[in-house]
Amino acid sequence: MSLYGGIDLGGTKIQAIVLEREGQEVLGKARRPTPSDGGPRAVVSALAEALREAADEAEVAPERLEGVGVGSPGEVDSGSGTVSKAGNLPGWAGEFPLAAALSEQVGASVIVGNDVDVATWAEFELGAGRQARSLLGVFWGTGVGGGLVLDGEPWHGRGGAGEIGHMVVRRKGARCPCGRRGCLEAYAGRKAMEAKASREVDRGCNSVLFEIMRERGRDTLGSGVWARALHHEDELAQRLIARAVKALGAGIASAINLLDVELVVLGGGLGTRFGEGMARRVAHAMQGHLFNDQRPPELKVAELGDLGGAIGATLLCDGATARRR
Amino acid sequence: MSLYGGIDLGGTKIQAIVLEREGQEVLGKARRPTPSDGGPRAVVSALAEALREAADEAEVAPERLEGVGVGSPGEVDSGSGTVSKAGNLPGWAGEFPLAAALSEQVGASVIVGNDVDVATWAEFELGAGRQARSLLGVFWGTGVGGGLVLDGEPWHGRGGAGEIGHMVVRRKGARCPCGRRGCLEAYAGRKAMEAKASREVDRGCNSVLFEIMRERGRDTLGSGVWARALHHEDELAQRLIARAVKALGAGIASAINLLDVELVVLGGGLGTRFGEGMARRVAHAMQGHLFNDQRPPELKVAELGDLGGAIGATLLCDGATARRR
Repeated sequence: MSLYGGIDLGGTKIQAIVLEREGQEVLGKARRPTPSDGGPRAVVSALAEALREAADEAEVAPERLEGVGVGSPGEVDSGSGTVSKAGNLPGWAGEFPLAAALSEQVGASVIVGNDVDVATWAEFELGAGRQARSLLGVFWGTGVGGGLVLDGEPWHGRGGAGEIGHMVVRRKGARCPCGRRGCLEAYAGRKAMEAKASREVDRGCNSVLFEIMRERGRDTLGSGVWARALHHEDELAQRLIARAVKALGAGIASAINLLDVELVVLGGGLGTRFGEGMARRVAHAMQGHLFNDQRPPELKVAELGDLGGAIGATLLCDGATARRR
Repeated sequence: MSLYGGIDLGGTKIQAIVLEREGQEVLGKARRPTPSDGGPRAVVSALAEALREAADEAEVAPERLEGVGVGSPGEVDSGSGTVSKAGNLPGWAGEFPLAAALSEQVGASVIVGNDVDVATWAEFELGAGRQARSLLGVFWGTGVGGGLVLDGEPWHGRGGAGEIGHMVVRRKGARCPCGRRGCLEAYAGRKAMEAKASREVDRGCNSVLFEIMRERGRDTLGSGVWARALHHEDELAQRLIARAVKALGAGIASAINLLDVELVVLGGGLGTRFGEGMARRVAHAMQGHLFNDQRPPELKVAELGDLGGAIGATLLCDGATARRR
């Protein structure tokens, strides 16, 4: 039995698993909130605790794991195991040697990869992209992230590829959280959508969005809040989601016009929450901007769900750049 | 001595050369207009005549050429040597076996490739991209075409990649010659710019653009006409070029945000005519939309000039997919 650890490090939660590789069976799992203060050191302790809990459930000592993979936001240098510019993680300014620090705490070898790349690769190897040679992963959540697999290999360019959220869909358009104008994320990112909803409500627009948020004891408009508001046929929620869908359609079509890959996998908090029906709406919005409109790419919802990031992280231990023949 | 033929088949002109491969020396060249009627058969005759004339100058019989490469607009199937959807070529409806028909007339083996792919590959092998592993070619002319080399290999996706001219830069924006809205080409393509200039002049806008065109005995606003009007500080020409530059900046930045390649090569009729100064303006317009703005790609003007397409076409005879190590 080869047992691997996988950890998905998110801005709000940490998900750890222990996976038995041959049977692809999750033998243990644990989830905990990402520490909101204490910086990288506190994050590393929380990662180690989550991994130990998952290992306990799997009845294995952490130091007996063949390897531990971590999918992290920010700029990741897999070679040195460092993470920098992790803007979604509180107190994470500058570069931090995440792999070395975690390895010291758990006694197993640790390899770190970018979270979006890990999730894209996981869908390619094990999820919605199993039959594909090339795909574009679109992760529709707090921001809009992208990952590419081209002819069976991950594509990173000079290390910064996949920023589909910052493709321009409307020059001189809405202000993006990144500070620029007209990016896809300015229309479709959950953070930008929440800011827009808040402005509209302040201006007197009627909406149940923030009511649902408070009822659920949340302080942000998560994917569940949006889904609930749509269920209530909230006009503002419908309008902002429609606007996001059109922007996603234009941005994804632009990427396809440039790259002509066979498959788009739609994941992320909003993408997986809304599922097939919304994927069809995005595909419809894309269609009107496709140059080769008689041969659209397939558009599928990500299959690995909640544990996808952590399962994908275990694949880092094989070297995620291995070509699949 | 290995002698190859290369032909650049354009919407208005045909350029043929005979190249001595080892020394990269052009031993013969000939140019003639693309027949405006007679369909594919007339085009093939004109291609054969141009090649024979270039071969005469090189003092070689066409049937002694090691091979003849043709860069053609439209959808090209290099395997079968057929060309379809060549909308820029008059009377070219449906699929035509260009390689077989030309080979029969000239007595040498013929291989056909897409004109933009051929020009991109030529810049990679012999031109502005000689030092690069990956690049985006942007051909700014009648339309806006794109070509990709990723990690030393041409990237075609499912055969339709590179349509950077139809990336969306302004959703719900200007109408593109392709019929859609907001494409890069709707702002930067010479054809779209001419239509816009014509509408503005009809509405009473003062401009020397069409005057210069008539003085030169032309019936379209070619790159020389635009250059001349800019030289005269024509307000309309300045405004439309500035609009094109901003759209190019947004579209190219979107492509870089997605792919993060190291180099952009700007070619095409307008790109090469305007040269370095305009390339700097495009780079400046791109900068404001780059996500990794501290590490912009290099942006260079295409180096091979007028004969680039024909020189690139000779490379088809080696198999343009050969990996460069």
